[in-house]
Amino acid sequence: MLETTKPPLYREIATLFTRQVSSGALRPGDRVPSLRRLSRDHRVSMSTVQRAYLWLESRGYLEARPQSGFYVRTPASRMIPEPQFELRPTRAAESVSDAILSDILAAAEDPANIPFGAGVASPELFPNRRLGLILRRLIRRQPLHSSCYTFPPGAQLLRRQIARRAAQVGCSLSPEEIIITCGALEGINLGLRAVARPGTAIAVESPTYFGILGTAASLGMKVIEVPTHPQQGMDLAELDRAVRRHNVQVCVTQTNCQNPLGYVVADDQKKSLIALADKHKLVVIEDEVYRDLTFEGPQPRSLKCFDRQGRVLLCSSVSKTLSPGLRIGWVAAGKYRAQVERLKLLTTVATAGLPQTVVAEFLASGGYDRHLRHLRGMLAAQMEAVRQAIAKYFPPGTRISRPLGGYMLWVQLPHGVEALELYRDALAEHISILPGMMFSASGRFKEFIRINCGHVWSETHDRALLRLGRLCEKHLDQAAAASRERSKIFGRRSGAVSAVVQSNH
Amino acid sequence: MLETTKPPLYREIATLFTRQVSSGALRPGDRVPSLRRLSRDHRVSMSTVQRAYLWLESRGYLEARPQSGFYVRTPASRMIPEPQFELRPTRAAESVSDAILSDILAAAEDPANIPFGAGVASPELFPNRRLGLILRRLIRRQPLHSSCYTFPPGAQLLRRQIARRAAQVGCSLSPEEIIITCGALEGINLGLRAVARPGTAIAVESPTYFGILGTAASLGMKVIEVPTHPQQGMDLAELDRAVRRHNVQVCVTQTNCQNPLGYVVADDQKKSLIALADKHKLVVIEDEVYRDLTFEGPQPRSLKCFDRQGRVLLCSSVSKTLSPGLRIGWVAAGKYRAQVERLKLLTTVATAGLPQTVVAEFLASGGYDRHLRHLRGMLAAQMEAVRQAIAKYFPPGTRISRPLGGYMLWVQLPHGVEALELYRDALAEHISILPGMMFSASGRFKEFIRINCGHVWSETHDRALLRLGRLCEKHLDQAAAASRERSKIFGRRSGAVSAVVQSNH
Repeated sequence: MLETTKPPLYREIATLFTRQVSSGALRPGDRVPSLRRLSRDHRVSMSTVQRAYLWLESRGYLEARPQSGFYVRTPASRMIPEPQFELRPTRAAESVSDAILSDILAAAEDPANIPFGAGVASPELFPNRRLGLILRRLIRRQPLHSSCYTFPPGAQLLRRQIARRAAQVGCSLSPEEIIITCGALEGINLGLRAVARPGTAIAVESPTYFGILGTAASLGMKVIEVPTHPQQGMDLAELDRAVRRHNVQVCVTQTNCQNPLGYVVADDQKKSLIALADKHKLVVIEDEVYRDLTFEGPQPRSLKCFDRQGRVLLCSSVSKTLSPGLRIGWVAAGKYRAQVERLKLLTTVATAGLPQTVVAEFLASGGYDRHLRHLRGMLAAQMEAVRQAIAKYFPPGTRISRPLGGYMLWVQLPHGVEALELYRDALAEHISILPGMMFSASGRFKEFIRINCGHVWSETHDRALLRLGRLCEKHLDQAAAASRERSKIFGRRSGAVSAVVQSNH
Repeated sequence: MLETTKPPLYREIATLFTRQVSSGALRPGDRVPSLRRLSRDHRVSMSTVQRAYLWLESRGYLEARPQSGFYVRTPASRMIPEPQFELRPTRAAESVSDAILSDILAAAEDPANIPFGAGVASPELFPNRRLGLILRRLIRRQPLHSSCYTFPPGAQLLRRQIARRAAQVGCSLSPEEIIITCGALEGINLGLRAVARPGTAIAVESPTYFGILGTAASLGMKVIEVPTHPQQGMDLAELDRAVRRHNVQVCVTQTNCQNPLGYVVADDQKKSLIALADKHKLVVIEDEVYRDLTFEGPQPRSLKCFDRQGRVLLCSSVSKTLSPGLRIGWVAAGKYRAQVERLKLLTTVATAGLPQTVVAEFLASGGYDRHLRHLRGMLAAQMEAVRQAIAKYFPPGTRISRPLGGYMLWVQLPHGVEALELYRDALAEHISILPGMMFSASGRFKEFIRINCGHVWSETHDRALLRLGRLCEKHLDQAAAASRERSKIFGRRSGAVSAVVQSNH
């Protein structure tokens, strides 16, 4: 039987608190309302409230103080500040740094490396046994499984399952507008080719997934980076300005579990983005491969849920949740269905048939929600472990994102540490990370790194982060020494640099 | 154990004859040399020559006349003339007719239709049982088979097998230059995007596969159609002229079992094409998905075999020979390897892993050559059956190609029959064919149709071709009636049209 995505009542109550903690409305040390008071305010039973508090306690959000009540706890990793929002004027950029791209892949495939780089998860986090069982059953039952093309839009069974799951979060997709693709990035590619031409200005978040930047650049499109808040997402006033200044016609966005920032945009903000798109007749390409991996609370709604005009092309896949290797993604292309379908036919002709059927049967069999609950719990724990380790090992001045879902942490290094140099030194020691500049088309985020938390936490990872922290300190020391050297040579204090270095120690 | 592609000696002798018959050097009724003479001329044993003649007799090429010797036979379908070569000046074209594309797919997937349209084969022609066995073994042996990305360039095991097979026909590919793709068309796409930009002039055969035309158009590239001889391939003098006139920078070509014409270009002609490419610094994208399906003689060599400068990107797949549904293709990208690999990563990220391993194991296990021999025999027989039926049922004036391999027949209809109207009337009667204009970017081939012969011949197919022939006659009659009507209205003989109609009866 299918499971509903609606969480139990006590979890909804608990979520109210975690959101307040995330937003800073509740701060470490704050006393939270009594059980009786909360029960009255929310018209729920005392036992529900108690369950919520006990759950929050078990997750480290609250601590019970005898004869006093519950207080907001201060976990080590929560004491680390998050990256700051920087409002910089947008400018057009046409190139993307990609020299590192092939290194990353090589690094991702080398088992000798600590896999903090590419966005991959531990193989054992996926339901491989069940996928194998379904596959073997299919092969027995349908001996001709791979002897035909499954032409676009793709297997109807799978398109119906995707529409059914979307309906569970209030998003009404028609199976007819869904086109099965070889992963979500093919959907983004086809979407861009369907609605834009070389030279078209495309607005993206800054930072955003390098695949989006690379794809747009490879199609000769002009990327406009819109300043993006680490918790609230794309700055809509800046987007509005960018649209008018650069004649932006397409916006590529991730509103749920953004990569690399990990935020989830509030529904009101999603509505505002759609209103802005309607106003300017923007086409919106929504990428939500990590959406099903929101750690807490009810599953967030897609931007597409709020789209009344068919202007949103929703791209997703099962690569981050079920199987990276089957290469099954899709695009719900709204009014651009026919163009996308035609381009799919002219690019990869068809998506492999057997993987489509396997995924469809897995979704239909109802075990997906149970699997996702397990996966979310694992990812949240892994991410927390990485945050704790960074908090412990990295020099003062380090800032870490506080993601609401997905695999990724976005880490701002102390001033003076160059991410690209850190990346190179780390790779030489078999630690794979990504330098922040990959997430910008214009060379921003030189002091940021992205850490993939998809892998099951281990002692080895802890040691690797200790080593990374030491490398950061080495780079800081070198920067300080270079600054002192410059002061000597120029016979004056190089004020800015040394001030920064000092403030971080 | 691996099998060599070198055929037995008697088959080489036989091929000398089939080539002479194909080229017209030997004509029906000609007496062929005596066994003794041939044995002496070719320095082979009498028994080898006898085996060759008996084989040719069994295939309907020769007939033995008592006390006289062997004579070239006249099979019914061999009496039909082939389509004529028409040397028309090339011109630039930017659009491609694609209104029919989605109809074709719908038609291909509807089991009620006779499948003479899309390039698909009967599922039972593929080695499904063995593929299923390999798949099930892999799933048991590697339970984590789909839990990782197989990043570009793709599975090394498969790339090595592809290089090994290429070496068997004297083509030295490095596994390092091979990138695994989702079918051959993805390779062509990535190749075009790597070496050309919107507006770049691309030379193609005329007619050529509509996927090539559609891809180039969707990327904003300018298609230059080069007149192409039904037996000899692209006219190189015309290509040379087109390159100079239109500043052509890329040539997309199929020299082996061309779709739709079915010819195989001679080695000398291939060398000349490479020399021309060297002279003009052309990039050549070679598509040879049907190459392994040459009906007779030794397997032809790829254009890439003659390439010394890494300018040929060789694209192929197993979709026409082993499994359309696994979506496994590749591009051997020569000196453009890095660019293609990067674009692959930015388009579909990776090709599905399990299908790569299945194909690699199938190729490694050595049964591929045996399977191909069987498939070639089936296809040759199916194609001959279709040719015979067309010869019997279509009106005089019809011309049919005489392919050396692949799935396709190219049929020139009598003057007065519009292929597009025939296509529509046929589809209404559940017969799927392709109108010739799909194989041109400039609306040529209005009197041609392509017939897919991938399906196992049956009575139903015979009846469908009878019906198609009747439809042709109906269209001819209507054209004649319309011509008479025009004569009456204008009070004069509409000379041209009625002359054409009469000459065809």
